[in-house]
Amino acid sequence: MVSVTSVSAVRSVASQLVCPAMQGHPCNAWYVAAFSREVGRAPFPRRILGQDVVFYRTDDGKAVALEGRCPHRGMPLSKGEVVGDTLRCGYHGFSFEATGACVHIPSQQSIPSKMKVRSYPLIEKWEWIWIWMGDPQRADPAQLPNHQDMGLERSDMTGQIGFMMEIQCNYQLLHENLLDTSHITYLHPGSFDTGNSATATFRVEADEKAIRLTREFPDDHSPLSEAARRYFDGPVNRLLITETFVPGLNVIKNIFYDAKRPERPPQALISPFGITPKDDRSCYHFIVSSMTNETFRQRTDEERKRLWDIFAQDRDALEAIQRGFEDLGPDAAEVRVRADEAGLRCRRAISELIRQEQLQDSSAAVR
Amino acid sequence: MVSVTSVSAVRSVASQLVCPAMQGHPCNAWYVAAFSREVGRAPFPRRILGQDVVFYRTDDGKAVALEGRCPHRGMPLSKGEVVGDTLRCGYHGFSFEATGACVHIPSQQSIPSKMKVRSYPLIEKWEWIWIWMGDPQRADPAQLPNHQDMGLERSDMTGQIGFMMEIQCNYQLLHENLLDTSHITYLHPGSFDTGNSATATFRVEADEKAIRLTREFPDDHSPLSEAARRYFDGPVNRLLITETFVPGLNVIKNIFYDAKRPERPPQALISPFGITPKDDRSCYHFIVSSMTNETFRQRTDEERKRLWDIFAQDRDALEAIQRGFEDLGPDAAEVRVRADEAGLRCRRAISELIRQEQLQDSSAAVR
Amino acid sequence: MVSVTSVSAVRSVASQLVCPAMQGHPCNAWYVAAFSREVGRAPFPRRILGQDVVFYRTDDGKAVALEGRCPHRGMPLSKGEVVGDTLRCGYHGFSFEATGACVHIPSQQSIPSKMKVRSYPLIEKWEWIWIWMGDPQRADPAQLPNHQDMGLERSDMTGQIGFMMEIQCNYQLLHENLLDTSHITYLHPGSFDTGNSATATFRVEADEKAIRLTREFPDDHSPLSEAARRYFDGPVNRLLITETFVPGLNVIKNIFYDAKRPERPPQALISPFGITPKDDRSCYHFIVSSMTNETFRQRTDEERKRLWDIFAQDRDALEAIQRGFEDLGPDAAEVRVRADEAGLRCRRAISELIRQEQLQDSSAAVR
Repeated sequence: MVSVTSVSAVRSVASQLVCPAMQGHPCNAWYVAAFSREVGRAPFPRRILGQDVVFYRTDDGKAVALEGRCPHRGMPLSKGEVVGDTLRCGYHGFSFEATGACVHIPSQQSIPSKMKVRSYPLIEKWEWIWIWMGDPQRADPAQLPNHQDMGLERSDMTGQIGFMMEIQCNYQLLHENLLDTSHITYLHPGSFDTGNSATATFRVEADEKAIRLTREFPDDHSPLSEAARRYFDGPVNRLLITETFVPGLNVIKNIFYDAKRPERPPQALISPFGITPKDDRSCYHFIVSSMTNETFRQRTDEERKRLWDIFAQDRDALEAIQRGFEDLGPDAAEVRVRADEAGLRCRRAISELIRQEQLQDSSAAVR
Repeated sequence: MVSVTSVSAVRSVASQLVCPAMQGHPCNAWYVAAFSREVGRAPFPRRILGQDVVFYRTDDGKAVALEGRCPHRGMPLSKGEVVGDTLRCGYHGFSFEATGACVHIPSQQSIPSKMKVRSYPLIEKWEWIWIWMGDPQRADPAQLPNHQDMGLERSDMTGQIGFMMEIQCNYQLLHENLLDTSHITYLHPGSFDTGNSATATFRVEADEKAIRLTREFPDDHSPLSEAARRYFDGPVNRLLITETFVPGLNVIKNIFYDAKRPERPPQALISPFGITPKDDRSCYHFIVSSMTNETFRQRTDEERKRLWDIFAQDRDALEAIQRGFEDLGPDAAEVRVRADEAGLRCRRAISELIRQEQLQDSSAAVR
Repeated sequence: MVSVTSVSAVRSVASQLVCPAMQGHPCNAWYVAAFSREVGRAPFPRRILGQDVVFYRTDDGKAVALEGRCPHRGMPLSKGEVVGDTLRCGYHGFSFEATGACVHIPSQQSIPSKMKVRSYPLIEKWEWIWIWMGDPQRADPAQLPNHQDMGLERSDMTGQIGFMMEIQCNYQLLHENLLDTSHITYLHPGSFDTGNSATATFRVEADEKAIRLTREFPDDHSPLSEAARRYFDGPVNRLLITETFVPGLNVIKNIFYDAKRPERPPQALISPFGITPKDDRSCYHFIVSSMTNETFRQRTDEERKRLWDIFAQDRDALEAIQRGFEDLGPDAAEVRVRADEAGLRCRRAISELIRQEQLQDSSAAVR
């Protein structure tokens, strides 16, 4: 991690950036495609990175993701039926197996070599299904984000699915929303702070893959700290860390320390957010929380409903911002301030990933 | 009729074809515009081949089709009123007669020579109203499809209107749907076959105007054959013929033969389909059935409702396919198989009609 | 005023005119932005001339109009909150004062010089709020339309707000609707005339800023004249004047004279219409009436509802006409007649204002 302090450096970076409502997306990366429970035996459609994908599970429960359009007549395969381990098109009955190969055409014996669909690498981990939409040869499980760091698959914490919320905005705007926590005071008054999120001092750290902004709240009295204050039986210092792992994950960590005995193990509330472009004008927001077992209990349906309403405030804001940018076009003005530093670093990092991918593609084309 | 058997020939044809979701339309042809009962004294609007048309009947019941937009201020004439034999615009009261000539302007005596609308040739036959949207000089009644062949205006059969269904897809996709009856097994399971439509052998015959695909079902047990089996009191051989008469008509014939005494007169269920582009992204599907009097009785409302639901399966599939093609653009892949032969021949025949029409138009422009 | 009588002159003018569904708009002009009562302490958004504007009132009640988008992250300022005399953005809490200057950024002390929004000159007069969307330096109160002429702020007449109706058409079409009163007979039968609006003789007068069409109805029996006939206790001659003051106002005057004693002071029903482009495909129609105190009383809610239904007939017609023009493109035919003269003069006058503004802008750019 490199600490970044120069504001002028941020400005020079900003000048080269694309409009955040029109950011493209790298393809060679793991994105959250779905929660495990969304995919079953019935074909399940979801559009990801501008492609129609169809998900299903084979007889033994393995999740499969295929290109969503039958290459024969263009019928959405999600309108078909899973028969054994294959997906049968609902128009003329062509069947495809998990590799994407066509294995049956009712009206003839031979199968043309081009009659196949793409099959996308998947990794099912915790309760996420991650997808690799780019070159399958490059699909490297080692590049999957660290689930321990997200507070998932740990014995001392319990992860819990919130919900998925679709937002009619470019995914870059959602990253920038999450990376500037000063919005908490104004967009979500009374929910997560005591009106001090915007004024707390902050620091930004970044490398090529991750951008992190940290704010400290000594003796915190926000609603978030209540459980920890009860647990420590005294004042709590809160650390609020927001970190984007480009291109498809943001993790917000609230770490609570016993202010009087800082050596005691901290308590934590961690929120990993899968952020996946549906296309360049809309995205999916997969919302999860993980909580230390000593302090927090799982959310009730009512609490989850309240959480939905809060995230809907972000959604409504981002959709209005997206419409504004689309109305004004790619050169719409953005006047930047210091609190935008993390968001701008994120934007540059994603743009850089896209640039590298295009270089790779064009050099591959030459070879 | 020329019998077509070479698959490679079909392939070479296919390579030159336009995207079936973006097919244009010939104008110098008869298309079904409406069922007779849809047109009365009140102005009736319908968009046909991308043009707004307004229909009404004169005092003596003659159907009239005029350009749907008042040339004065662009008001839709369908918002006007029929007064005697004329159609009066609802904005400033300009009146037009069946020829399209303006015959009255309330605010002045003289009528500018350009103040007129197009009047389209119509032929009302059986319960269809056919329209000629192209050059009226070329509107040749002899080119009207043969109504006997459709099972209409025959003493041994009774025709019956089903309904008109609007579909948000290019009309070419509907022709291709109807010309590949292998879809019956998968899109309409249990409705018209015993799961064998896709596997039955077939033959294709075509000339410049008509493309026909025939499938044979010896000793057929599909629901369609039930009435004929009762009538013949024994096994039935069924012939399923689907035939497109380019550009605006498809006829599906189910012919039932007494399997034991094939010399007996066959029974028939014939379904003529008027297929008319609304514009290049949507079309009208006029659904009619004609049935031999000995075996079939007219459908009840309930049966017609069931039929609607079946055709809605086609509509939903075609609309999804259309959206997919529009999303992917004119070069979207189509991998073809032998069963597509009739559909591809139809596509080529329609494209050829359009090409010829453009040649005529440009040579007319030179003259 | 110059009297215009030559029809051929109108024709030559017409040939150069733009499509009335695609007319642009001058910016350096006063337009009605809102009725006073629409603007209060809570931020109120309205799109005007294709720009998002947000209105509010300061502590002492002064109306303010600011650019509607926060320059920081593009959030609509209408989603913010008025605090004292400033408008605070609902995303990150940036505050703007009535001049458009940013006066507070929660996360930092210094305010970048570019962090500001446009503030639009307003004049609140009678119950209208007029806005100047163009160069604020040119915002000249002397150019505000004459309110006495509209029948407002006069002791002998009482003005009354009707309502605002949004119409999905270019504002030019609305001017042309109001300037050709021959439509009253056909679009609003039985409402405002005895079927004679279209046939009454008319005269057109025009200068660069105003276009006026006058029709005379001696011994008028239209519903409009009823109150005046009671007041004069005898026959009434009615004068119907429709006048557009380019670009944003039309005034329709019904003047009633005692037919037997024409020297008596006339009675009047004046309807000023604020006509403001929302963008180039939609506009606002601000509907007001002013009535001589001796003859008319204020409209009841029920009468206003009836009036709404009548104006909705215009709206429905204009929206259909707009769709037709958009469908056919900028070269869609319009065949003109004598009654279009005032509308065409209006179109030319607005186009001329736009042309002059473009000349000014380009010469300003050179300097």
